[in-house]
Amino acid sequence: MPTVRVTRRVHFSAAHRLHAEGLSAEENARLYGLCNSPNFHGHNYELDVTVEGEVEDTGYVLDLGELRDLVEAVVLNDLDHRNLNEDVAWLEGVIPSTENLVVRIWERLVEQIPRGRLVRLVLWETPRNYVEYSGD
Amino acid sequence: MPTVRVTRRVHFSAAHRLHAEGLSAEENARLYGLCNSPNFHGHNYELDVTVEGEVEDTGYVLDLGELRDLVEAVVLNDLDHRNLNEDVAWLEGVIPSTENLVVRIWERLVEQIPRGRLVRLVLWETPRNYVEYSGD
Amino acid sequence: MPTVRVTRRVHFSAAHRLHAEGLSAEENARLYGLCNSPNFHGHNYELDVTVEGEVEDTGYVLDLGELRDLVEAVVLNDLDHRNLNEDVAWLEGVIPSTENLVVRIWERLVEQIPRGRLVRLVLWETPRNYVEYSGD
Amino acid sequence: MPTVRVTRRVHFSAAHRLHAEGLSAEENARLYGLCNSPNFHGHNYELDVTVEGEVEDTGYVLDLGELRDLVEAVVLNDLDHRNLNEDVAWLEGVIPSTENLVVRIWERLVEQIPRGRLVRLVLWETPRNYVEYSGD
Amino acid sequence: MPTVRVTRRVHFSAAHRLHAEGLSAEENARLYGLCNSPNFHGHNYELDVTVEGEVEDTGYVLDLGELRDLVEAVVLNDLDHRNLNEDVAWLEGVIPSTENLVVRIWERLVEQIPRGRLVRLVLWETPRNYVEYSGD
Amino acid sequence: MPTVRVTRRVHFSAAHRLHAEGLSAEENARLYGLCNSPNFHGHNYELDVTVEGEVEDTGYVLDLGELRDLVEAVVLNDLDHRNLNEDVAWLEGVIPSTENLVVRIWERLVEQIPRGRLVRLVLWETPRNYVEYSGD
Repeated sequence: MPTVRVTRRVHFSAAHRLHAEGLSAEENARLYGLCNSPNFHGHNYELDVTVEGEVEDTGYVLDLGELRDLVEAVVLNDLDHRNLNEDVAWLEGVIPSTENLVVRIWERLVEQIPRGRLVRLVLWETPRNYVEYSGD
Repeated sequence: MPTVRVTRRVHFSAAHRLHAEGLSAEENARLYGLCNSPNFHGHNYELDVTVEGEVEDTGYVLDLGELRDLVEAVVLNDLDHRNLNEDVAWLEGVIPSTENLVVRIWERLVEQIPRGRLVRLVLWETPRNYVEYSGD
Repeated sequence: MPTVRVTRRVHFSAAHRLHAEGLSAEENARLYGLCNSPNFHGHNYELDVTVEGEVEDTGYVLDLGELRDLVEAVVLNDLDHRNLNEDVAWLEGVIPSTENLVVRIWERLVEQIPRGRLVRLVLWETPRNYVEYSGD
Repeated sequence: MPTVRVTRRVHFSAAHRLHAEGLSAEENARLYGLCNSPNFHGHNYELDVTVEGEVEDTGYVLDLGELRDLVEAVVLNDLDHRNLNEDVAWLEGVIPSTENLVVRIWERLVEQIPRGRLVRLVLWETPRNYVEYSGD
Repeated sequence: MPTVRVTRRVHFSAAHRLHAEGLSAEENARLYGLCNSPNFHGHNYELDVTVEGEVEDTGYVLDLGELRDLVEAVVLNDLDHRNLNEDVAWLEGVIPSTENLVVRIWERLVEQIPRGRLVRLVLWETPRNYVEYSGD
Repeated sequence: MPTVRVTRRVHFSAAHRLHAEGLSAEENARLYGLCNSPNFHGHNYELDVTVEGEVEDTGYVLDLGELRDLVEAVVLNDLDHRNLNEDVAWLEGVIPSTENLVVRIWERLVEQIPRGRLVRLVLWETPRNYVEYSGD
């Protein structure tokens, strides 16, 4: 059977602030610029979740509705309309950069994919900035 | 000379929370749902600024670069990477809904347009929600 | 209080065929071209629903979540993943062109808007074709 | 019969330069900035052509395929992959700003619309700049 | 000579229905949900066709206009404004899921690419769902 | 530390013409079609610059603002609002196809990335045509 990659795009809106605890206010400001703004800012994030696998007799690698429900249950319900610095247990102690966020989302999802295997996440922070992670 | 509408689209990223001071926690939660989340959430906003006027000999109604600089100076520098509830003097006491925000942006801009007249603002909060205001 | 227009964008996927009962096969083919293809074709439609009204103390003209639920209940549940020629009671006997469709959607919605008034529908059939209706 | 607005979006790619014959090199540079660059630059333009009219028994205001063919014949064939300063007879002597361009396109189209009436053109020069004209 | 990947994006609109012949009506409904709706639904599909090869003296890997003509001749002419379950000889007996569709399109194209080699197809069913295939 | 790919999307507008010096006018016209139009045409280009590396303690692979400044300094300042055939020293003698352009941009950037390594460029000439290069 042929091997195909299937992707579901989901979205969430969240606040965050980039700030390293071990650095001074001046170092944080120099390092993160406006992203260090003390009272948070926020984004409309878009997340592409890609699963690779053989096409089954159903014509599916896996049901993308099932994949969407999974991503909602283990990722979006915790992130959407939340503050990534303050509200999310599995981001505690993590600087919520897009890089760190995509890695933590991967860890939440990778063992739970019901069929096929997670091969790529793409996370858009703005229409001009995005990151990709494949578990390496 | 023909009358043309010219538009410059700009963007900013900000955090906000919808919360009415005079209402109880329960009323706020029922009224605003997830948008009342206590530690803020955020969006990538897109703003279309439209000026109408006669086309001058230059071929311009007004220089859109000049318009962009004006919008940056009187609107974006205050909003981008900020918290709309806490950081913006001209939003103090305002519930930062998209509706209230577009009206306050109008008030900041309407007297300052160097040529032609401001006729429409369109403010996108997400790719699925937007508001329009024409000063009425 | 200022008057603002607020818009919610929703989407649905449907099959349809353009065919006039009173015309011959040849006339239908000449009039509608590929859109007359006998076994139907289909589109991902996008619909912008715009309501105009005064901004209330809540900062809302109306709750866009409430508007989305209304549009789902009286429009999308009947259209999404359906055949516009065969499956929709309120399109019976209507040639399901984008023009006719937007007018019938207006009639379904106009009396039901809970606050403010419906002022515009924009219906996209493809990224290159769209129609607008304001009840005239 | 209800009155509906129907739109066809088309695109073309062209080179241009903004330069006023009566002004000095310094005045042109100050007025137009990079757009005065001597060897031209260029854009992917998008043009939305909107026709308003009553919906006929066919379900159409007018056939959008017919509208596209008309726009190709009287506008796009002259503009696509051309230099707006040098190659287009009906732009001779015109500073090819987006404002001037949308007015000249209107003049080319307004008398030729086979059914309904041309009510709006929207011309995008970039994803962040666009102009609208309604014949006023 | 450097090796570059070049892509042409094309689109088509089609109707389809997901239904497995060997399963009961109940099993089909549970498996495919709304996609099993009996009278079909439809989509605006976008297809990215990517060819990899060395850049020739012309500056091209291959002429993307030539590639577009090929894709029209062997794929789009059969699919656009058609019913994927009923109208397409090379989809007979195939459940027209996006996964199965992208594999069949690959088989139609892979031997016919005039220069370079087909390395990836991306097929969008909606703006939120897409599949990729590389011939594995 | 996990390895993540981070991308910054930038844009520029430029004029160009495809023309091979060693070929006759007829051969050039046949080979390049409208792209051989003598007085140039132009495009709004979008460029995605992707850097891969380990996520540092800051949460960054590299600061995308720093990456944007680098791309502006060594690529965009030379290309934006310019003629690719006439104005760019590092394109002299190069047929400015999208393929050749992406390779020359790679050469400008690859040694200058301050952290991580350049792994992919995607260059869009129109919303329907794009090329990718990874240094092979």
